[in-house]
Amino acid sequence: MGRDEKLVRVDLGARSYDIRIGRGLLESAGSEIAAVLPGARLAVVVDETVAGLHLSAFSESLAAAGLGHTVIKVPAGESTKCFSQFERLCDEVLAARLERGDAVVALGGGVVGDLTGFVAASVRRGMAFVQVPTSLLAQVDSSVGGKTGINSRHGKNLIGAFHQPALVLADTAVLDTLSPREFRAGYAEVAKYGLLGDADFFAWLEDNWQAVFEGGPERDEAVARSCQAKADVVAADELESGRRALLNLGHTFGHALESAVSYETERLVHGEGVSIGMMLAHEFSERLGLIDAETVARVHKHLSDVGLPVTVQAIPGQLPPVETFMDIIAQDKKVSRGALTFILTRGIGEAFVEKGVDPAVVSEFLKEKLEA
Amino acid sequence: MGRDEKLVRVDLGARSYDIRIGRGLLESAGSEIAAVLPGARLAVVVDETVAGLHLSAFSESLAAAGLGHTVIKVPAGESTKCFSQFERLCDEVLAARLERGDAVVALGGGVVGDLTGFVAASVRRGMAFVQVPTSLLAQVDSSVGGKTGINSRHGKNLIGAFHQPALVLADTAVLDTLSPREFRAGYAEVAKYGLLGDADFFAWLEDNWQAVFEGGPERDEAVARSCQAKADVVAADELESGRRALLNLGHTFGHALESAVSYETERLVHGEGVSIGMMLAHEFSERLGLIDAETVARVHKHLSDVGLPVTVQAIPGQLPPVETFMDIIAQDKKVSRGALTFILTRGIGEAFVEKGVDPAVVSEFLKEKLEA
Ligand SMILES: NC(=O)c1ccc[n+]([C@@H]2O[C@H](COP(=O)([O-])OP(=O)(O)OC[C@H]3O[C@@H](n4cnc5c(N)ncnc54)[C@H](O)[C@@H]3O)[C@@H](O)[C@H]2O)c1
Ligand SMILES: NC(=O)c1ccc[n+]([C@@H]2O[C@H](COP(=O)([O-])OP(=O)(O)OC[C@H]3O[C@@H](n4cnc5c(N)ncnc54)[C@H](O)[C@@H]3O)[C@@H](O)[C@H]2O)c1
Ligand SMILES: [Zn+2]
Ligand SMILES: [Zn+2]
Repeated sequence: MGRDEKLVRVDLGARSYDIRIGRGLLESAGSEIAAVLPGARLAVVVDETVAGLHLSAFSESLAAAGLGHTVIKVPAGESTKCFSQFERLCDEVLAARLERGDAVVALGGGVVGDLTGFVAASVRRGMAFVQVPTSLLAQVDSSVGGKTGINSRHGKNLIGAFHQPALVLADTAVLDTLSPREFRAGYAEVAKYGLLGDADFFAWLEDNWQAVFEGGPERDEAVARSCQAKADVVAADELESGRRALLNLGHTFGHALESAVSYETERLVHGEGVSIGMMLAHEFSERLGLIDAETVARVHKHLSDVGLPVTVQAIPGQLPPVETFMDIIAQDKKVSRGALTFILTRGIGEAFVEKGVDPAVVSEFLKEKLEA
Repeated sequence: MGRDEKLVRVDLGARSYDIRIGRGLLESAGSEIAAVLPGARLAVVVDETVAGLHLSAFSESLAAAGLGHTVIKVPAGESTKCFSQFERLCDEVLAARLERGDAVVALGGGVVGDLTGFVAASVRRGMAFVQVPTSLLAQVDSSVGGKTGINSRHGKNLIGAFHQPALVLADTAVLDTLSPREFRAGYAEVAKYGLLGDADFFAWLEDNWQAVFEGGPERDEAVARSCQAKADVVAADELESGRRALLNLGHTFGHALESAVSYETERLVHGEGVSIGMMLAHEFSERLGLIDAETVARVHKHLSDVGLPVTVQAIPGQLPPVETFMDIIAQDKKVSRGALTFILTRGIGEAFVEKGVDPAVVSEFLKEKLEA
């Protein structure tokens, strides 16, 4: 392990694995993978954008470690998480004559990670899988926890598998090429970990966010603390029956907003929806008398400082009426017999799952926010 | 549990489940399922042939137990285990608005079971799954053990998941409508359990096979002992790393034969390939000095008695040369660095895994058999 490298261990018994985090890790990726999967042959899945920026460094590192590999390119963007790419990738991994013991590697953002993970889970009923996340969102969220999958016309991420990687390599230097908007969107999930369960981390982010954006050692620190937070929750609840739901802080409202703009990323990307959603979750918690205005203001300030949207009005274009939002929220899988389930909070770092939320109260609250 | 019903428990910790076996079980299927999955809504996948014969009895039983269900029909035949049916079924299960806690049911042979199981594994990253196997092969083999999947153009069963059912209901009366050829093919797997690990069961089959074919209580007994045999192996080795390989007795040669006839089922169905393959495995074991001619003759007599093919010459049409067979066997996944892995035997019920078989010896043996 390099001098400045950070290590997060995801504890899942026989399926435990390491997340390695550091600047320039891509250059030693080959030897890191060879150490975990000696002699493996690899199929590397990468999107066109990331391929143009980081594939040659990665390939060289694999070659230097003597790891034979095939590259499979997919188009960049959410629509790549589909059945036809799933079929194509399964086919190409088999065409590359990978056997059990060989591995499938995702080099890219959450889209490539989710799709590739489902392919790795399914080919020969489960091949070894390595995540090399290249977006901030992927490094702090989607590459940790083993959820993989594709979208269906009935909704996002509805087809997939739980499939843990054998190794995650997060090179924080590759984030330098990420657009500021994508970086900020990933940062919303970083802030989420503070807000849901770690007040100290949130306070640290308030002081250090600029260095995180600029790429100093604080960036590695933020990625590592985020991964650790997610790893802790995942280890406690691998198959998402209870505590893991806390990770959805801001996501019920956030998903509704994404759906309301038909997932048009020019208008709203996921992390932006999460930012507005977390704001709404805090304002709703205030409305229910759970937190004070000061706490809400603190969250508002930090998210605005980093340049994330904090109101529904920040979304360009027209939004649908409150009824549409309520329909979307009711269809969300976190609903059980009339009452809504929300992640609410009793303070910074004190989120909790509330299963008995009255839809009428939500509707009234949202209506005000939409008309504000 | 009905008076004459048999029960086999598959022991897999939190994923343990029951296999219920008996004549007429279809009529109580609704209440059996409701007991295991109270309040579940169901999507029932069935092929056109089985739908014509047994769907109405099954549907009535579900309705009587108050279980709402949607029926999804697929064409009968191996080509249904494909990506496009996988996509279609995932889509229809979601369209039926099944939630986690609801269940997907396979009513049919191994084709419907394998395909439906993979759909159940993948929709929402894992829905409850019920197997109602209607072919003998499905009752004694494919419905037990949690292997699910579809075929790829690179080979059979190459894409899939391990996904255990919550319940297996094997109504042995539905086997009355199975063609004699399909029944015999399934019986090859029944005989396999005796040959691989249970000499008493094989002797019992020698005495009772006629009653098994005719549908007396002996049929239930044979299905139950087969399920128990497979369940024991699966419980010891859920993810197929060691002992589970014994279940492949007769399958290396059998698969090569199926592949050599391009899976044309008019020429050879799977169980027929297994029958010839088991015969070859015994003859090869004799060649290696592991068993005597008498043992080989006993196996030969029993498989011939029930009407199963026992020589490669029984396959109609031309077979490829031995070199083609050796290529197919070498490509089989049970190969490791030059040496071949075969299931051999030291006597009835005494099969074992041999990893160091010299391809040249196999080739010479097979050549003789092809020219016999
Ligand atoms: N599996 C999970 O637990 C989980 C959790 C959260 C989100 N997700 C999924 O993750 C996806 C979103 O992930 P995302 O935001 O990474 O999307 P993405 O993979 O589409 O990446 C966003 C964009 O950034 C580009 N990009 C990635 N790395 C880059 C780099 N280093 N430099 C320049 N450009 C780069 C990509 O080409 C893409 O255009 C969604 O599909 C979401 O459902 C999954
Ligand atoms: N998952 C496993 O562990 C496992 C093990 C062995 C085999 N398999 C798979 O099982 C499949 C073969 O299974 P199969 O032999 O049942 O094939 P199948 O499902 O195609 O059934 C054979 C034929 O019998 C018909 N049929 C089924 N039940 C009937 C009934 N009661 N009456 C009349 N007709 C009936 C079907 O419509 C079909 O035409 C293969 O795809 C094989 O790969 C899986
Ligand atoms: Zn998120
Ligand atoms: Zn078989």
